Amino acid sequence: MNDKRIIQLLDDQDFYDRFERIKHVMSDSGLDSMLIGGNANLFYLTGRVFAGYVFISTSTTGPLYFVRRPNDLAGDNIFFIRKPEDIPGELSAAGIDAGRHIGLETDTTSYTMCRRLMKAFGMSEAGNADAVLRTVRSVKTGREIELIAESGIKQEGVYREIPSLYRSGMTDIDLQIEIEYLSRQRGCLGQFRISGDSMELFMGNILAGDNADTPTPYDFAMGGGGQHPSLPVGANGTVITDGMSVMVDCNGNFNGYMTDMTRVFSTSEVSQLALEAHDCSREICRKLAEAGQPGVPARMLYEQALEIVRSHGLEAFFMGHRQHAGFIGHGVGIEINEMPVIAPRSRDVLEVGNVIALEPKFVIPGTGAVGIENTYVVCGAGPMRCLTNAPEEIIRL
Amino acid sequence: MNDKRIIQLLDDQDFYDRFERIKHVMSDSGLDSMLIGGNANLFYLTGRVFAGYVFISTSTTGPLYFVRRPNDLAGDNIFFIRKPEDIPGELSAAGIDAGRHIGLETDTTSYTMCRRLMKAFGMSEAGNADAVLRTVRSVKTGREIELIAESGIKQEGVYREIPSLYRSGMTDIDLQIEIEYLSRQRGCLGQFRISGDSMELFMGNILAGDNADTPTPYDFAMGGGGQHPSLPVGANGTVITDGMSVMVDCNGNFNGYMTDMTRVFSTSEVSQLALEAHDCSREICRKLAEAGQPGVPARMLYEQALEIVRSHGLEAFFMGHRQHAGFIGHGVGIEINEMPVIAPRSRDVLEVGNVIALEPKFVIPGTGAVGIENTYVVCGAGPMRCLTNAPEEIIRL
Repeated sequence: MNDKRIIQLLDDQDFYDRFERIKHVMSDSGLDSMLIGGNANLFYLTGRVFAGYVFISTSTTGPLYFVRRPNDLAGDNIFFIRKPEDIPGELSAAGIDAGRHIGLETDTTSYTMCRRLMKAFGMSEAGNADAVLRTVRSVKTGREIELIAESGIKQEGVYREIPSLYRSGMTDIDLQIEIEYLSRQRGCLGQFRISGDSMELFMGNILAGDNADTPTPYDFAMGGGGQHPSLPVGANGTVITDGMSVMVDCNGNFNGYMTDMTRVFSTSEVSQLALEAHDCSREICRKLAEAGQPGVPARMLYEQALEIVRSHGLEAFFMGHRQHAGFIGHGVGIEINEMPVIAPRSRDVLEVGNVIALEPKFVIPGTGAVGIENTYVVCGAGPMRCLTNAPEEIIRL
Repeated sequence: MNDKRIIQLLDDQDFYDRFERIKHVMSDSGLDSMLIGGNANLFYLTGRVFAGYVFISTSTTGPLYFVRRPNDLAGDNIFFIRKPEDIPGELSAAGIDAGRHIGLETDTTSYTMCRRLMKAFGMSEAGNADAVLRTVRSVKTGREIELIAESGIKQEGVYREIPSLYRSGMTDIDLQIEIEYLSRQRGCLGQFRISGDSMELFMGNILAGDNADTPTPYDFAMGGGGQHPSLPVGANGTVITDGMSVMVDCNGNFNGYMTDMTRVFSTSEVSQLALEAHDCSREICRKLAEAGQPGVPARMLYEQALEIVRSHGLEAFFMGHRQHAGFIGHGVGIEINEMPVIAPRSRDVLEVGNVIALEPKFVIPGTGAVGIENTYVVCGAGPMRCLTNAPEEIIRL
């Protein structure tokens, strides 16, 4: 057939940048080869998602593609397979040695599938390919930063229109549905990729009033009771009323790469304490953006934030009130929870090309959640550059 | 605090039904105990999602709950933990022996986490708790069937309104966004739970015209190129025009349990071949609903469907044209891909309480996808009962 689709959608320079860095980190990790099959990693490696695996070896010049579906892909070094057990034979036939230390996505692939692959390759131990990809993916290429910035501009556009969506008497769920609808009309893809199985979220999180103080099971910065016990996070049907903060933290995935942005809205003035906390959040973002230079340990940013919070006497409300989140920022890209993590015991050190969402938030009883979240890129010199530039004050609905 | 939330939301009889069946299947599988932490299984066991584990032993009277988050849950036998490694010590302190054969969710939990748990419990091999839960969850309780039927009624309501959403000149994506918006307004929770990491879908799948024939990497019955290479399934921006079929297969999760329903729409008559194939799909559903009685092997239903397809000479178009799906039906409940599977080599045998989506579909070049999908429950006697009763003919937009 002539209508085969190309498997490798990345441009040459971008692909080369990613692949060279991967081989470098693999060598540091003592891995001879890796077999990668998770959707987020496949998208990183090829610019698309398929059912199958990318095989990368430090001793071969380029990756090999083992594809189960779809059947219309074309590209250099594609091997169509029925099952992963076919891969070792194909490699042998091609005269390629996978080596002794093979990395699998052990942090994100099921035990059963890892064991299948280990058995097929005769491995007694598996290296951690997820750790390699997490490290590599934490430093974005120029093209990735362009894509994230593009999502940021689109997400800003949606946030600027939010006040026009509000109608008196709305619940937080009503407003969320309007924001979802607008986001999708403006090109949001909807899919919200989170690494690991334990976190779930549909399109985003809207927290009105004291619902922000409802502890959630998930490792998000903020909570909320949710619409139903099967998905206990976010909006819970609270009617939006005067004096209440409405925190909007919605899906910024417009091209496979996402920004993460939070803004607060309200129908009236909020309490003085809430205003102070909101300003404190903006101060933290401003100062951390200045401090966030290459070589700075991520935990230092956390400590600096905490110092600012203490100087305002707001510790009791920081990152929750009845239940506190243990981090104030995280890498973002293809997934919402990438490296580095801005947390007290983080061992990450900032590098040029890190893209980091900072979300120093507060929960004020009687008002709700306040504070902002922006996505920044770590630059070679000077402060981090903000990719989410919607107005930061509390916006009147 | 007095506002603790109850951990166990199921009513007593329903909980008892599930738990007794689990212990029975565990015994058959030779498991002494199981540690369950996946969100879908937690929801099945408790009616809610939390961060932590349910411990079930064949030798104790009820489950124990090991909870990491949220911190405001209350219930019999709750142990708050910081990390899963705390569990064996808590069990010892309570004088409970986990036994020698412990089951973990090996098919859905990462290799790293399974290894952590195995190390904590001193296990050299892990039993497959996913297999137990898959078997148990394939037979729904009375309450579960009520919930699925409730979702079916709500989903029917959405589908009946679809013609009112269409405007001339719309693309498939435009229509999908309108359906998503309506679904959410009618109470759809949005979240679309799929077991396993390799399948992704946002809210549903709309296929207009020849896009239905684009192979997808995912194991869905139908394909579609998708809106973006990061999520290659479903609507791709095709403008809806006369003669084209528009297949709608959208999210039916209104309460944590979902129905799966597909209907076809068009702005004009479609080709004679497409009409024949659509009628053939309805015939297959009708005959399989009659045949789908307890004790019938799932593969027999598949064979019967294929016979009907052959009698109409439609094999080339059945379950895809350029790429064919290998199944015509699947269990549905908390997740979209439950047991039993209606496929040629399925070893599943129908039982009372199975809830099965049948989707014998066709792709007709030049027209698009046709056929219907309904969700049925296997009854004690007589045909399967349909839970998705929207009109089945091709509906005019």
